[in-house]
Amino acid sequence: MRIALDAMGGDHAPNPIVAGAVQALEKDPELEVFLVGEESLLKKLVPADHPVTSRLHFHNATQVVGMEESPAIGLRRKPDNSITRSWQLLASGKVQGIVSAGNTGAMVAGGLFTRRFLPHVDRPAIATIMPTMRGPSIMLDVGANVHPKAEHLFQYGVMGEIFARHMLKKDKPTIGLMNVGAEQGKGNDLVRLTQQLFSQCDLQGSFIGNIEGRDIHRGVADVIVTDGFVGNVVLKVCEGLFEFMMKMVGKEVIGVLDQEKDKAMAALHKLVHTYDYSEYGGAPLLGIDGICIICHGSSGERAIKNALSLAARLARAGINKLIVEELERMPQLNSAATNQG
Amino acid sequence: MRIALDAMGGDHAPNPIVAGAVQALEKDPELEVFLVGEESLLKKLVPADHPVTSRLHFHNATQVVGMEESPAIGLRRKPDNSITRSWQLLASGKVQGIVSAGNTGAMVAGGLFTRRFLPHVDRPAIATIMPTMRGPSIMLDVGANVHPKAEHLFQYGVMGEIFARHMLKKDKPTIGLMNVGAEQGKGNDLVRLTQQLFSQCDLQGSFIGNIEGRDIHRGVADVIVTDGFVGNVVLKVCEGLFEFMMKMVGKEVIGVLDQEKDKAMAALHKLVHTYDYSEYGGAPLLGIDGICIICHGSSGERAIKNALSLAARLARAGINKLIVEELERMPQLNSAATNQG
Repeated sequence: MRIALDAMGGDHAPNPIVAGAVQALEKDPELEVFLVGEESLLKKLVPADHPVTSRLHFHNATQVVGMEESPAIGLRRKPDNSITRSWQLLASGKVQGIVSAGNTGAMVAGGLFTRRFLPHVDRPAIATIMPTMRGPSIMLDVGANVHPKAEHLFQYGVMGEIFARHMLKKDKPTIGLMNVGAEQGKGNDLVRLTQQLFSQCDLQGSFIGNIEGRDIHRGVADVIVTDGFVGNVVLKVCEGLFEFMMKMVGKEVIGVLDQEKDKAMAALHKLVHTYDYSEYGGAPLLGIDGICIICHGSSGERAIKNALSLAARLARAGINKLIVEELERMPQLNSAATNQG
Repeated sequence: MRIALDAMGGDHAPNPIVAGAVQALEKDPELEVFLVGEESLLKKLVPADHPVTSRLHFHNATQVVGMEESPAIGLRRKPDNSITRSWQLLASGKVQGIVSAGNTGAMVAGGLFTRRFLPHVDRPAIATIMPTMRGPSIMLDVGANVHPKAEHLFQYGVMGEIFARHMLKKDKPTIGLMNVGAEQGKGNDLVRLTQQLFSQCDLQGSFIGNIEGRDIHRGVADVIVTDGFVGNVVLKVCEGLFEFMMKMVGKEVIGVLDQEKDKAMAALHKLVHTYDYSEYGGAPLLGIDGICIICHGSSGERAIKNALSLAARLARAGINKLIVEELERMPQLNSAATNQG
């Protein structure tokens, strides 16, 4: 299992990125990691006699797309950047997957440039795990495409269902369409068209129709389908509200305690840790012919280790083959897409 | 101050609705309430000798649009419904404001049918208060219009700024545009056009550009401008995550305590109460020539009392006059709207 890791991407790169790679290699003896970045710099971060060095390779890239840089401009002006070089490793078949905590837009744009999408997938989607009252759900797209068409959203649903079944181990995952109300006919043109598409195709009862925002954390659907604009806003709103609530609980609940203050604070930290989005090890970009994991910019070594582990598990589970097979089962999709124009 | 109250709207109507009206009347001696609904039924809910009866009027409406009913169909098939009758009271000038905890879509549709919008306002918006680390902010639109144009979003910003200044008592409120990234040029066509419009108009430095989902609860902007689809999803996601987090804190933090468990639980209940969205007394539909407050379907008497009080305060503050004056200051807006086609 060979995975390329953008060693230069992330708020704190390269040190915690390289440390995360070493941890992942120690944990998974079948794993090989290609560290992509300034080779001379990266080599200094791993002792030459470290037991994992035989499975740790270096792939030179002298440039970095900044975290806040415009993806299109960054990729064009810096042809030797670590993100482009990682995608090239995937495109050439030298690695089965790539992982980066760098500029998310540049990672997605790099993937779009390769055009290495799975058959029957028109646009990839970023999928993220959401903690819910009934265990983890998956939400997609959270930002790869802010102008999707209905058939893209349909494909997100199929990809998410496969992910939920094989990676979240849900027996019969349900798919819900993010909307402003549960009733049929609600919402904007995009979700109404998408609902038609889902209703026309044989998803063996997995499509449960519209869901509302409050249904996410209630765990009403295992797969939450939405466009990249809404999904991105929702994901970040959750991060912000989570942070806000934890501060309020610390101040206004734990703050009033006396003897058991420390005990409560330790339990709160544990809770924050459990629901910390970075713990899931990053968000897969589904629909790519290969594995691609996009990590939070603030990823530390633990998040990077988890992301490499997730990439390896996705590759081993053969997710992509299953997605293609499932989409092939749906001849209606092509005609529906054609009708939409 | 005369306010019409849809006595039949809400999950638990009419009892807590009528009780809320009585509380509001007891609190505000200048207030008169018109209870709209089945008169014979409503009259039984208030003792004839109650001190407030001289300021409590009944306006008959024999039909009710159900909470889950299609707004368009409900309003058409039930001409004598309490929502239509409330809007008619406003349109005829018999009341200065209306309040309902009934079917939100029907309330908005009822407002659209009257066509009583403020001058220079093309579409009304539902505005909701969001608690943040820096005090309350206002977000709009949260569901009146799922297909807005850029000039509508611009008008939301102006209306929200007036609301924040005069109702939230912010000295120089800031306006942020909900987007997927802070950089200019980010997002979909709608937000890019909207950003241009905000940049062209003289808002005296209040427009701070794009904000991201996580900025809401950090209180980065006093006014959060977004389209009705995104705003509605965000509002409900916050409700769901809030509910989820409070349950988790109750179980995993307070649940581990011994002696101080009751004390912590009391503080948690207080926190839930403070940030309970219903405490703010409902969401104003801004842009209407008159005052309109839309309450949560689950509103109890306290929420109704608060909504009536909010309606009276909005009317007294002369919010609408200020909105019209502010929009009149912006000649660029008309040409920009025309250019967009």
